[in-house]
Amino acid sequence: MLGTYRVRTDLAVESREKFEKDNVEIEGVVIHESYQESKDLKTTVVKIETEEGARTMEKPCGTYITMEAPNLVVPDEDYHREISVELADHLRKLLRLDREKSILVVGLGNREITPDALGPRVIQNLKITRHIVKEYGSSGMGEERVHMVSSLVPGVMAQTGMETTEIVRGVVEETRPDVVIAIDALAARSTRRLNCTIQLTDTGISPGSGVFNFRNGLNEESLGVPVIGLGVPTVVDAATIVHDAIAEVLENLEESELEEFLGEVVTPRLHSMFVTPKDVDETLKLLSFTISEAINMALEGGAARKA
Amino acid sequence: MLGTYRVRTDLAVESREKFEKDNVEIEGVVIHESYQESKDLKTTVVKIETEEGARTMEKPCGTYITMEAPNLVVPDEDYHREISVELADHLRKLLRLDREKSILVVGLGNREITPDALGPRVIQNLKITRHIVKEYGSSGMGEERVHMVSSLVPGVMAQTGMETTEIVRGVVEETRPDVVIAIDALAARSTRRLNCTIQLTDTGISPGSGVFNFRNGLNEESLGVPVIGLGVPTVVDAATIVHDAIAEVLENLEESELEEFLGEVVTPRLHSMFVTPKDVDETLKLLSFTISEAINMALEGGAARKA
Amino acid sequence: MLGTYRVRTDLAVESREKFEKDNVEIEGVVIHESYQESKDLKTTVVKIETEEGARTMEKPCGTYITMEAPNLVVPDEDYHREISVELADHLRKLLRLDREKSILVVGLGNREITPDALGPRVIQNLKITRHIVKEYGSSGMGEERVHMVSSLVPGVMAQTGMETTEIVRGVVEETRPDVVIAIDALAARSTRRLNCTIQLTDTGISPGSGVFNFRNGLNEESLGVPVIGLGVPTVVDAATIVHDAIAEVLENLEESELEEFLGEVVTPRLHSMFVTPKDVDETLKLLSFTISEAINMALEGGAARKA
Amino acid sequence: MLGTYRVRTDLAVESREKFEKDNVEIEGVVIHESYQESKDLKTTVVKIETEEGARTMEKPCGTYITMEAPNLVVPDEDYHREISVELADHLRKLLRLDREKSILVVGLGNREITPDALGPRVIQNLKITRHIVKEYGSSGMGEERVHMVSSLVPGVMAQTGMETTEIVRGVVEETRPDVVIAIDALAARSTRRLNCTIQLTDTGISPGSGVFNFRNGLNEESLGVPVIGLGVPTVVDAATIVHDAIAEVLENLEESELEEFLGEVVTPRLHSMFVTPKDVDETLKLLSFTISEAINMALEGGAARKA
Repeated sequence: MLGTYRVRTDLAVESREKFEKDNVEIEGVVIHESYQESKDLKTTVVKIETEEGARTMEKPCGTYITMEAPNLVVPDEDYHREISVELADHLRKLLRLDREKSILVVGLGNREITPDALGPRVIQNLKITRHIVKEYGSSGMGEERVHMVSSLVPGVMAQTGMETTEIVRGVVEETRPDVVIAIDALAARSTRRLNCTIQLTDTGISPGSGVFNFRNGLNEESLGVPVIGLGVPTVVDAATIVHDAIAEVLENLEESELEEFLGEVVTPRLHSMFVTPKDVDETLKLLSFTISEAINMALEGGAARKA
Repeated sequence: MLGTYRVRTDLAVESREKFEKDNVEIEGVVIHESYQESKDLKTTVVKIETEEGARTMEKPCGTYITMEAPNLVVPDEDYHREISVELADHLRKLLRLDREKSILVVGLGNREITPDALGPRVIQNLKITRHIVKEYGSSGMGEERVHMVSSLVPGVMAQTGMETTEIVRGVVEETRPDVVIAIDALAARSTRRLNCTIQLTDTGISPGSGVFNFRNGLNEESLGVPVIGLGVPTVVDAATIVHDAIAEVLENLEESELEEFLGEVVTPRLHSMFVTPKDVDETLKLLSFTISEAINMALEGGAARKA
Repeated sequence: MLGTYRVRTDLAVESREKFEKDNVEIEGVVIHESYQESKDLKTTVVKIETEEGARTMEKPCGTYITMEAPNLVVPDEDYHREISVELADHLRKLLRLDREKSILVVGLGNREITPDALGPRVIQNLKITRHIVKEYGSSGMGEERVHMVSSLVPGVMAQTGMETTEIVRGVVEETRPDVVIAIDALAARSTRRLNCTIQLTDTGISPGSGVFNFRNGLNEESLGVPVIGLGVPTVVDAATIVHDAIAEVLENLEESELEEFLGEVVTPRLHSMFVTPKDVDETLKLLSFTISEAINMALEGGAARKA
Repeated sequence: MLGTYRVRTDLAVESREKFEKDNVEIEGVVIHESYQESKDLKTTVVKIETEEGARTMEKPCGTYITMEAPNLVVPDEDYHREISVELADHLRKLLRLDREKSILVVGLGNREITPDALGPRVIQNLKITRHIVKEYGSSGMGEERVHMVSSLVPGVMAQTGMETTEIVRGVVEETRPDVVIAIDALAARSTRRLNCTIQLTDTGISPGSGVFNFRNGLNEESLGVPVIGLGVPTVVDAATIVHDAIAEVLENLEESELEEFLGEVVTPRLHSMFVTPKDVDETLKLLSFTISEAINMALEGGAARKA
């Protein structure tokens, strides 16, 4: 089976592409696509509604919103405010901000590895309000209603010796936020999607996602509160790139023969490597700002501004 | 009363100096001093044994070990290994490492402010073992007995919106270490002690300590497990420096007159400022390595190496 | 003479204040003040026109523009764009951008010490164009006329072993910019001015300025091209704070008696220390963005947008 | 010709491997290999002696010393001091430290991209002496004879707008060192060599080397003084990995057919991507320390310690 090497993707739009060429409708999965030409923004909403759909897609039931905006990798004057505005809208809906809420934003990943530093970098520009609201009340913010925003950068297991889930669960139990937003760098299957795709989901962070240390799941089941996952694919697994190239070149081979070739070439060493663009430093810097601005917009102000 | 401005110090040796000039023996406080000439290291052990002693010293009951080593600010070949060895000895005793233990090391402070970054920087060079022991057992480390070391950099309230105590308590309850070591940058009263004094105490981190955001207490009471506090004074409060200068110059004045002068000059703005040496970057870099090496030495190996 | 300890300031507005109380007009110095209420911005232009004026002010002949905006330390939505706009205007005039020019922006200071990191941090957000213009011509930028912007972070002598002037002079001789902008963290005399005052001057960086390593001068004489100095006071010398407090308290003393007191209290150790606000991390982050935006505005576009 | 895609390597040992399978002796190239079992260290010295050899190897004439030590990626107690000692020996010989010399160490690369940050990180731990020797003479260091060590981190073109060669040449002309050591992250062809291979050469940095921005050459011709290049391969070009996998799988194909396949799969996008190990943060941290220690050892002390 081709599955000896499971090609990894954290993106629901990519899970779904497998079936596209066969023009199959996937049982239990509803897909809606739209395109805004002015922003060159394609939005795909994938709803996995049944357990069967979940098995087929290899992703838990829930809503997956994917924004694809090729321009995100191109610097502009205002850090792609048009994308921030759109993302803020989706966020407000998923967060159900119909009343004052307490929101913990978690920046997953390793700040010492450029393409894994998305989470920690987004946190750096967030407006944190929980301590002010707790001390002075909503009026301390000069607004009628305000959400309490807190943030955490838990680090990665090699640095802390603890699983991210343990750390976040402890902090959630102690500070009791209404909802968690978990920001993470993801693995895509296609290099074309790197750094210009944002995935937002109400299923949290899937167990095994991320390329760097296969995160434990962060979701309502493990944390006890709803978890919104917000991710951007910043890397492709090195094994995936080689796998796909070989598969493309050898597409006419018998599957068993193909497997043999793949087994030879896709070595364990390749699985411990990642692929990322050479300008990942510049792109991540812009991207993390686009995302932090979106979160700030979504969480700022009270019920009045909700979508 | 001179107390309108309470001159701040986090060091037990400085609390005690107030009484020295009067040659007073302090009720409920036992002091032992020693000096090692080869290392130019003065060690003072202050034991506060009664509530009366605690009130006088304005510090909780417990043991305070202070190592003063003026050479710590002078770079050398091996990052002052002689001090690391000594500190490791004190640590082993306070930690009671007579059996395999699970130890959480917490790096307090703000990594964005040089003299407050001691805690986070010490964590960077620690040997973290908890995840390896949990996965492979002690044998995974190639040793018969090993301690499980984990670490956490909680950040400061302005960044997280949460009190450090909330974060650490949550993680402690979730991961259940036997003991916590909390590393922190402290405030001294005298510039002479900056960056060359290490204080180790079994009372944890006192509420209100630190110059940067007046930490909440981290101690057995708030965390439910014993807490060893390990601190180095890296700053003096700007108000303290002015206060002491004025007091020295005006020592012959009536106290009420002195108070008046102090009230004029020691402004609220001064209280929001700190004083630190211009070479704090270099010194902190060396110092954090000296301390992380000490902790690595103390925690490495099993019962065999215990003091 | 009070001069035994020369109280340090890098600000022309502070040099001038010495004479204010005496209501003296300073020979060879022309001063113009204005105030914009909507921005709460006070602008002082000091022109030192003669050698006599230079001696009195202890600053070289030239123009010193000081913008004092207390709000700079207060976070806002757009990083104080109103101040960026104003600063950009002054910059354009000093740079004489009436034709395409090549501009080297130098970020002085030590990125490892928070209040000295202003220069390196401003550089991080600059739009660098020289390499693009050199490769594709002005059309590569999609504009008719563009300035060539390059940047350099030379580091400090303790890190490089070289004087900043040596490094910058070498790079200037090799790349031949028309003008240099040197960004630096300065020392003020008054804590009131910290992080909310911007000084812009066509005299470059004065020798002996900066608190951290007493920079060598960067000016037309040492570099061979005009040098615009852009500085923000981020620290006060610890000795200055104590000196001024004592002088205030003892104002009725004979000068010789005062000197004696000062000599006792203002120790050499104090001279190796600096004073800075506890929230210097947050303020510097905002401030460096306000300044980089101002430079980007001033340098972007061709002659059309010049003031 | 397979050369439509020129597979990139900065390593002389890899240039040479192309010919190995054919068991060809390369005209004008002398190779010497040795192996130290205790250190698991293989050292290969490649001397390219003629222009013909240079053409064949696609590298300039000179000496290339390659140390391959698989253990370098494994953390140990003393940061692989045994490798530092060996590297220091080679350095001393190439630097000809038979008299007091002035040495400028240049840390090439981009500190914002983890695998390209090797150069800047090595610089951080160097002992810089030039400013001390210039101020106090050799006696200022407490030694009879000392070398003057200075350092520079020039940054990359996207950040500075200048070519690295321009910056370094300017500083060399101004400060006149006797020799330059240029530290750089390199591109290998084989993932097996990443982070455990050190190449030392008296030919400096070849034009077009490095994966991140194809450095300009830094060598005696461009700088006017001898340049020692010290590099570690930290990345493989993403195109290389795919190329080699395809070539392996299709080894029995006609060359023209192979070319066709490669042309399809090795896309321009792949050329803008790099491959690196997921633990590159940890490995680089250790490796940069091993190298800085080697340089410190080589440059410290006077003629007495020279090899």
